[in-house]
Amino acid sequence: MSKPFMFEKPLGMRDTLPVLYETKASVRNKMSDEIKKWGYQFIETPTLEYYETIGEASAILDQQLFKLLDSQGHTLVLRPDMTAPIARVAASKLLKQQIPLRLAYSANVYRAQQREGGRPAEFEQIGIECIGNKSICADAEMIALLADVLKASGLQEFKISIGHIGFLQEFFLSILGTEERASVLRKFLYEKNYVGFREHVKSLPLSSIDKQRLIEFISLRGSEDTLTKALDLVENNKGQDSLGELKELSAQLKEFGVAQYVSFDLTLVSHMSYYTGTLFEVYADQVGSPIGNGGRYDNLLEKFGWNASATGFAIRVDRLAEALGEPMQPVAPECILFTPERRMEALDFAKSKRSEGKRVTIQDITVVQNVDAFTRTFSEVHLFVGNGGNGKDE
Amino acid sequence: MSKPFMFEKPLGMRDTLPVLYETKASVRNKMSDEIKKWGYQFIETPTLEYYETIGEASAILDQQLFKLLDSQGHTLVLRPDMTAPIARVAASKLLKQQIPLRLAYSANVYRAQQREGGRPAEFEQIGIECIGNKSICADAEMIALLADVLKASGLQEFKISIGHIGFLQEFFLSILGTEERASVLRKFLYEKNYVGFREHVKSLPLSSIDKQRLIEFISLRGSEDTLTKALDLVENNKGQDSLGELKELSAQLKEFGVAQYVSFDLTLVSHMSYYTGTLFEVYADQVGSPIGNGGRYDNLLEKFGWNASATGFAIRVDRLAEALGEPMQPVAPECILFTPERRMEALDFAKSKRSEGKRVTIQDITVVQNVDAFTRTFSEVHLFVGNGGNGKDE
Repeated sequence: MSKPFMFEKPLGMRDTLPVLYETKASVRNKMSDEIKKWGYQFIETPTLEYYETIGEASAILDQQLFKLLDSQGHTLVLRPDMTAPIARVAASKLLKQQIPLRLAYSANVYRAQQREGGRPAEFEQIGIECIGNKSICADAEMIALLADVLKASGLQEFKISIGHIGFLQEFFLSILGTEERASVLRKFLYEKNYVGFREHVKSLPLSSIDKQRLIEFISLRGSEDTLTKALDLVENNKGQDSLGELKELSAQLKEFGVAQYVSFDLTLVSHMSYYTGTLFEVYADQVGSPIGNGGRYDNLLEKFGWNASATGFAIRVDRLAEALGEPMQPVAPECILFTPERRMEALDFAKSKRSEGKRVTIQDITVVQNVDAFTRTFSEVHLFVGNGGNGKDE
Repeated sequence: MSKPFMFEKPLGMRDTLPVLYETKASVRNKMSDEIKKWGYQFIETPTLEYYETIGEASAILDQQLFKLLDSQGHTLVLRPDMTAPIARVAASKLLKQQIPLRLAYSANVYRAQQREGGRPAEFEQIGIECIGNKSICADAEMIALLADVLKASGLQEFKISIGHIGFLQEFFLSILGTEERASVLRKFLYEKNYVGFREHVKSLPLSSIDKQRLIEFISLRGSEDTLTKALDLVENNKGQDSLGELKELSAQLKEFGVAQYVSFDLTLVSHMSYYTGTLFEVYADQVGSPIGNGGRYDNLLEKFGWNASATGFAIRVDRLAEALGEPMQPVAPECILFTPERRMEALDFAKSKRSEGKRVTIQDITVVQNVDAFTRTFSEVHLFVGNGGNGKDE
């Protein structure tokens, strides 16, 4: 274990320099404005939470949690997601009166990484939670708002895949009988390893009919027709009910005017283990990983003593910024260089520029070591030097 | 050590509910806009840093650091301030070309608290750093920009106290001889315990002239005349030079048009041990602790291999919000309640409202348990229920 070099940062930790900073700020503002237009209220929760409350309620693997001990010997975690902290606030505070409750957040979350060059260990999510709303209209609202928020951010093309973890789980258990077997197949799906899935199914001690059903299941991805095809594969009521929910959801999404962004993928599973019903992921062409995801989690609030259904989504701001392509260039300020005897003039000029909304840097030229290097990034340079008037040097 | 109750948060950790959230966001935006108008570029640094780089470079006491171990056995800290991380970025990146460099941040910092009911362990700072600028004009810029930023936030009255840690240190050492004795007196000043200071001075083995000088030193607080009085107390050149800097600073602050906010306090010391020259604190009437502070730190960059002077300030957003008094009330959204058969109408109505910039919550009334409780917080309620038209219920 060597001592870190003075400029080094911990594994997965990154600096955000001005260009990316402004891009993220601009995207964040546009998305927040849209979320507020849908009547959601933003809240903030602490970075550190108790492991025994939030750490255990979150769906993030234990090895991905940043843990520390406080002075009283309790284990704390850096929040690995925002859904569990929001559930804690929703269940504990007066807000509970206003159900269905619509909350939003824009926050960094933390997931420890095992090696360099991989994923960031700290990243920003902007998201919403709708709590105490069991209607399919709440699921539709998530997806419609997700689409509107992405459009507001400036993203032109994206695809929202919708699945149903309740359907998948019901289907797997009815054929496979055990959660252990189901979890092996879910892992193939999570990795989108359909070849591996097929190979594994062939090796299972099942009837050829059941094997065939599992193989056909893999192709349940695409347009609304997928839901009709799926109906042929299920035998029990619960599975049919789940498909009925998706049918109704699909109809409502047409009313919301977002059907063109939507497709169905009944093989969709999530690393977030708390989902119970409809779930979804959103992809943009340019980015390999989902730029957002969400779904229904009807059992999480129970961990905070409140039997309430809930649904929500989170957008990864870093991946969205990548999907948007061209970074926002911050407005380059103008620069006023002055010698001390003309400082007063320079300050007045700067003040009048700023009152017009301009960005203006003022700088005593006598302490600038390299004027060329210093002035390179400004949009315009004004000189108040020696006896001359306001010299411009553009 | 008992298990934390499910709603509990770690010591000093707080939730920010909608009203305070909107107040902070509004104040943050106004201040950021002003900072950008002065040509500062915002950056973001990671929450976690190496203890051996940032933890040791920061001026925060070791017992206030949140520490944890990463998977490689390195000690990490949650950043206790932003000055050290910004110094790391400034010294390591390409930005270094553009000196003097003007950077800004808006970020939460973390300081472990030992008991409940005390200070927050996580709080937001908005601040700036100007690096590679040895001129007094840079010190004046800090104070002028601080005043402008506070005015932009909506704060009407505040007082900026300016001191000089170089002067104080020089003065103490010339009389007391040892840093150990000086640090005892500094502690009294930090606590603003002037009675204790006097008592302690009386007990010191010094000449009555020197004791008198130390007692007179205590009254070096007030208008610009303070600087003239101080001149009578110092004998060596270094002390005189420091006072000369403050005289020049005072003259420049008049040119910047912020003299009315400023007073001098040569007894001012800071818990931030890295200050080397001019330092300042800003108070608002309504708040007991400083809402911001700053100063010159010409030796910190050396810890990152760059011999560069620097100056900056940080504003505590929570204390500023307190000083502003009345919290911002978030715009209350309108609410559209509908029955499923009239959903389409309700959605269209919501869409047209939002396109006018309105905030509108939509809600299927059939899943609302208590309509009165739910609708209480909205500015207006629209009903799309049964056969009627657009019923209003205000």
